[in-house]
Amino acid sequence: MSKVTIKYLANELGLSVSTISKALKDSYEISAETKAKVIELANKLHFVPNPHASSLRRQKSKTIAVVIPEVADSFFALAINGIESVAQQKGYHVLIYLTHEKMSREEVILNEFKSGRVDGILISVTKETSEASHIKEAVNSGLPIVFFDRVCEEVITAKVTTDDFESSYKATKHLISKSCKRIGYLSISKSLLINRKREEGYRQALIDSKFGIDEKLIIEFEDDEEKNLALLKKILSGKNKPDGLIASVEKLVPTVYQACKEKSIRIPDQLKLICFTNLSSSSFLDPPLSTITQPAFEMGKSAATLLFKGIEKHGFNLMSEKIIVPSSFHKRKSTDF
Amino acid sequence: MSKVTIKYLANELGLSVSTISKALKDSYEISAETKAKVIELANKLHFVPNPHASSLRRQKSKTIAVVIPEVADSFFALAINGIESVAQQKGYHVLIYLTHEKMSREEVILNEFKSGRVDGILISVTKETSEASHIKEAVNSGLPIVFFDRVCEEVITAKVTTDDFESSYKATKHLISKSCKRIGYLSISKSLLINRKREEGYRQALIDSKFGIDEKLIIEFEDDEEKNLALLKKILSGKNKPDGLIASVEKLVPTVYQACKEKSIRIPDQLKLICFTNLSSSSFLDPPLSTITQPAFEMGKSAATLLFKGIEKHGFNLMSEKIIVPSSFHKRKSTDF
Repeated sequence: MSKVTIKYLANELGLSVSTISKALKDSYEISAETKAKVIELANKLHFVPNPHASSLRRQKSKTIAVVIPEVADSFFALAINGIESVAQQKGYHVLIYLTHEKMSREEVILNEFKSGRVDGILISVTKETSEASHIKEAVNSGLPIVFFDRVCEEVITAKVTTDDFESSYKATKHLISKSCKRIGYLSISKSLLINRKREEGYRQALIDSKFGIDEKLIIEFEDDEEKNLALLKKILSGKNKPDGLIASVEKLVPTVYQACKEKSIRIPDQLKLICFTNLSSSSFLDPPLSTITQPAFEMGKSAATLLFKGIEKHGFNLMSEKIIVPSSFHKRKSTDF
Repeated sequence: MSKVTIKYLANELGLSVSTISKALKDSYEISAETKAKVIELANKLHFVPNPHASSLRRQKSKTIAVVIPEVADSFFALAINGIESVAQQKGYHVLIYLTHEKMSREEVILNEFKSGRVDGILISVTKETSEASHIKEAVNSGLPIVFFDRVCEEVITAKVTTDDFESSYKATKHLISKSCKRIGYLSISKSLLINRKREEGYRQALIDSKFGIDEKLIIEFEDDEEKNLALLKKILSGKNKPDGLIASVEKLVPTVYQACKEKSIRIPDQLKLICFTNLSSSSFLDPPLSTITQPAFEMGKSAATLLFKGIEKHGFNLMSEKIIVPSSFHKRKSTDF
C-alpha cells in the first residue's frame, strides 16, 4: 500500500490540505465535527505524518521526554539530573513521565508522542515490558529514541547500559570469598533484561565456584512492601535460610534491614548483604551497606548526548549505538569487609 | 464589588474584547506595551477569567503539570506518587518539570503553559522564588494552580502545606528536653516560606525556653555538597560548636553523618540530630535518625484532588482553599530517645 499523505486525506474528505493539517494538530480554527472526521479517516488508513514534515513540526517543541518506572529510586533521580544537565545546555525542556511499572501506561504514554509533543525519548522500560511493539512503532515513526538502563534488546535503537552481568558476578564471588555457602538473589522481575543479566552473573559465579544452584534462593518480589517483608522474614528464618544476599533493587534495602531487625539476624555475622543502589546514605547504615553503584548521572548524560545527536544531526544513526558504562563496587561492613 | 469581566477591562482601556483576551493569553499578535497595560489593570482589579470560557479552551490536553525543584528527594518522589494516584483515576497524564532550584527555569516553564499544554499546575517553588509574578500571571490567565509544600503566600490560589512551625517547635523543644544547650538550625534557603516557618518554630521554642538565639547557629547551605561538608566540619569543631542540630532538608543528612564521622563526633552523645525527611532508611542509619516526616503522599493526593476540582467543577473556587496536613515526629537514637 502506498503511503497515505495529508494530500490524500484532503482529497478523500474534500477538504483543503491546510484544514487537514490544522485538524490533526487540534487547532481551534477547525470545528470539532471536522476534526472528528479527519481523525477517523487518518486512524482508519493508519496515517503516519511524513517524518520530514513532522520533524519540521517537531523541531519546535524543543522538548524531550524521559519515560521511567518511578522517581522514588536514587538511580532514576540521579539519571534525570544527568539528562537535564545536557538538555539545559541544548535549551531543551525535559518532561518526565512515570509508568509505575505498568506496561499499559507505557503504551498510553508512547501513543501520546505521536502528536509531536516531543522531539525525542529517553526510556527505561517497566518490569512488565516483555513485548515492545509500542516502542518499535515509535522508533519506526522516525522519533529518536534512546534506551537507558532497562532496555528492550529487540528494539533497534541506541542503548546505554551498565555491566550488569559482571557486577553481579563480582558481588557473588565476593560473598563466596567471605565464606557464604547459601547465597540468595532478590529481584523484582524475571523478565527485565537487566535483571536477567544480573541473575546470570550470579548463577555463573556460583557455577564457576562449583556451588549448586538452589532455585528457592532466587526470589522475585512484588510492589507490595508488607508482602515483601513477610516473604523475606519467612525466607530468613526457614530451615535452609541464606547466609548471603544480593538485592538487585534499591527498594529492597529497607525491607532487608527491617526483616533482619525483626528476626534478630545480625548483619554481617549471620547474613552478608550486597545491594545494587545509589543511596547516598549507604555508608551510614547500620551496618554500612556494600553496594554496586551504577554510574547513574553519567548514564543519563550519555543517553541524552546520544539522543541530541539523533535529534540534531542529519545522517547520525542511532540504531547502532551502544554504550556500556561500568558500575563500581563498594565493599563495606555488611559483607564483613 | 461586582465581578470584573474582559468586557469591563476592554471598556476601561479603550481596547477591543478580543485584544484583551489575546493579551491575557500572551498572544504574539499583541504588543508588549499593550500586554503590560492589560495585565497591570487585570492584576489591579483582581480579574479572574470566566471559568466557562477558560475551561472550554483547555479541556483537551487531559494533562497536568507538576513543577518541583528536584526528584532526588524522598518528599517529592512520594508526593508525585500521591499526585499520580489521583490523576490516574481521572484519566489524566502527569508531566513532571524540574526547576533545579532556579527561578529562571521556573519562569520559562510557566511561560510554556500559556500555550494550553496543560489543564492545571501543581507547584512547589524553588528556593530562589522570592518574587512570584510569573505564577500570578498564570493564575490570572485562568489556569488552575495549586501550591504544595513550598508555597508563595502572596499568590491567591489553593495551598497544601504541613505544620512547619509546629514541627520545628516540637523538634527544638525535644532537643532542649534532652539537655542540648546550643542548638543549630540548618537550611538551604532563608527566603523559602516553609523554611522561614521552620526557623520561626525553632526560634520561638528557644525563646519560650529562655534560651538566647545565636545567629551563628542558623546556617544556610548551598547546592554544593563538598562546600557544605567543609562548612559543617568547621562548625562542628569550632569553639562554640552546637550540641544539637535540626536539619530542615533531607539532602543534609548524609552530609551531617559524614562530617561527624570525619570529626569523630559521636551522635547522640556529643551531638543530637533531628531531620525533616521521608527517607525510608532513617531507622536503619547508624545511629537511627530522629525525623520529622511530612505526609508526602497525602499532600500530593490532597493537592491533586483540589486541582481536579478546580479543573472540572464550574463554580469551585480554588482561591480560598487551604489544607494543612500535620507531620509526624519520630524520635529515635540520634536524639538519645
